[in-house]
Amino acid sequence: MTQSNIHERLKALDIALSPASAPAAAYVMSAQSGNLVFLSGHIAKKNGTVWQGKLGESMSTDEGRAAARAVAIDLLSTLHAHTGDLNRVARIVKVVSLVNSTADFTDHHLVTNGASELFADVFGDAGKHARSAFGVAQLPLGACVEIEVCVELSE
Amino acid sequence: MTQSNIHERLKALDIALSPASAPAAAYVMSAQSGNLVFLSGHIAKKNGTVWQGKLGESMSTDEGRAAARAVAIDLLSTLHAHTGDLNRVARIVKVVSLVNSTADFTDHHLVTNGASELFADVFGDAGKHARSAFGVAQLPLGACVEIEVCVELSE
Amino acid sequence: MTQSNIHERLKALDIALSPASAPAAAYVMSAQSGNLVFLSGHIAKKNGTVWQGKLGESMSTDEGRAAARAVAIDLLSTLHAHTGDLNRVARIVKVVSLVNSTADFTDHHLVTNGASELFADVFGDAGKHARSAFGVAQLPLGACVEIEVCVELSE
Repeated sequence: MTQSNIHERLKALDIALSPASAPAAAYVMSAQSGNLVFLSGHIAKKNGTVWQGKLGESMSTDEGRAAARAVAIDLLSTLHAHTGDLNRVARIVKVVSLVNSTADFTDHHLVTNGASELFADVFGDAGKHARSAFGVAQLPLGACVEIEVCVELSE
Repeated sequence: MTQSNIHERLKALDIALSPASAPAAAYVMSAQSGNLVFLSGHIAKKNGTVWQGKLGESMSTDEGRAAARAVAIDLLSTLHAHTGDLNRVARIVKVVSLVNSTADFTDHHLVTNGASELFADVFGDAGKHARSAFGVAQLPLGACVEIEVCVELSE
Repeated sequence: MTQSNIHERLKALDIALSPASAPAAAYVMSAQSGNLVFLSGHIAKKNGTVWQGKLGESMSTDEGRAAARAVAIDLLSTLHAHTGDLNRVARIVKVVSLVNSTADFTDHHLVTNGASELFADVFGDAGKHARSAFGVAQLPLGACVEIEVCVELSE
């Protein structure tokens, strides 16, 4: 892909990157080793504040999916801040999705698709990743979804 | 090890690889970066369908251990599909095991041994891995165990 | 940094490394691939035995933070046993922190700071890592906190 591609794709998808997230505590939002970038778990936000909720209780699967999509856009924004150019992304390698859910909710994979599908839309084949998704007891600040990513950059 | 070793070992252990798993959603079962392969979280299956249950409630530790072993065989099957030859495995590097459990169950490590011991049986020293195991609120489709793995291939 | 730095820093911080941890089950405490070392999830210990507790129920955030700091020291001890010299650490790349918590507790990030701040104190900029922290239903042996780390060594 040429540099214009990803930015044109974002525009075509009507996706605006968000301001880079700040860590909630004593860590950084991204750390690179070799050509792998590890992004911290990003919690879902809505209108700049924490998107709280628990799947199976106070949120529908569709809302969770929208939250996961919002996290993915924040992850892209952090990745853009880290790389300076999203066209340096060679591959979204691995996604881990933590869904704040009750012991009865079993659609964590559908919630997580909100992020996975965005990566596929933006990066095409390079957006196809290995993934784990599961239900956690609770998330920092009561967020409904937290997602971390491992990304390979081109040399 | 020569190529015949791993396949003979599987035969000696009476382990038949399963058909490659299909992703339940918008992702792929394995993604490689350099010589590291990241396998998606695989959920436990029994007779081809999701192996549901919650440790501490509807399943014994021994049953959980059998489920973790079944997941490990599915992971090997995906790895075989990815590599074309399991003898290319240089090391099972890292295992993360998510056990669907109540807030009272504390034997996640014994459940997870079902997978860890299989890797050690099949690969010997190359199967000895770093590992995290813990109890989650719930898993996709109600599965009892989900395991992901990071594997190093030989050059 | 020169070799004396890290060891002098540990001394200045009054941190004594612990005896290397033994795995609770069929795995190893660290596995290396290339120059990345993956440390197994280490559960919190106090006076050599498992530090049990659940945040939001039987433990305060401050106690949890102390437990996370204790885990970080055990992780450094394992890392020392693995490397033979902590000055070979180029970067603490990634931390995953599993906090045993109720469905009401939302300060997992503050608990985890006990570990993150220790890494920053010991390694300076090289201790700044990407991180995910979240609440799990339960941990092996009833531990209050479990933390795993990915570390880059210098060539």
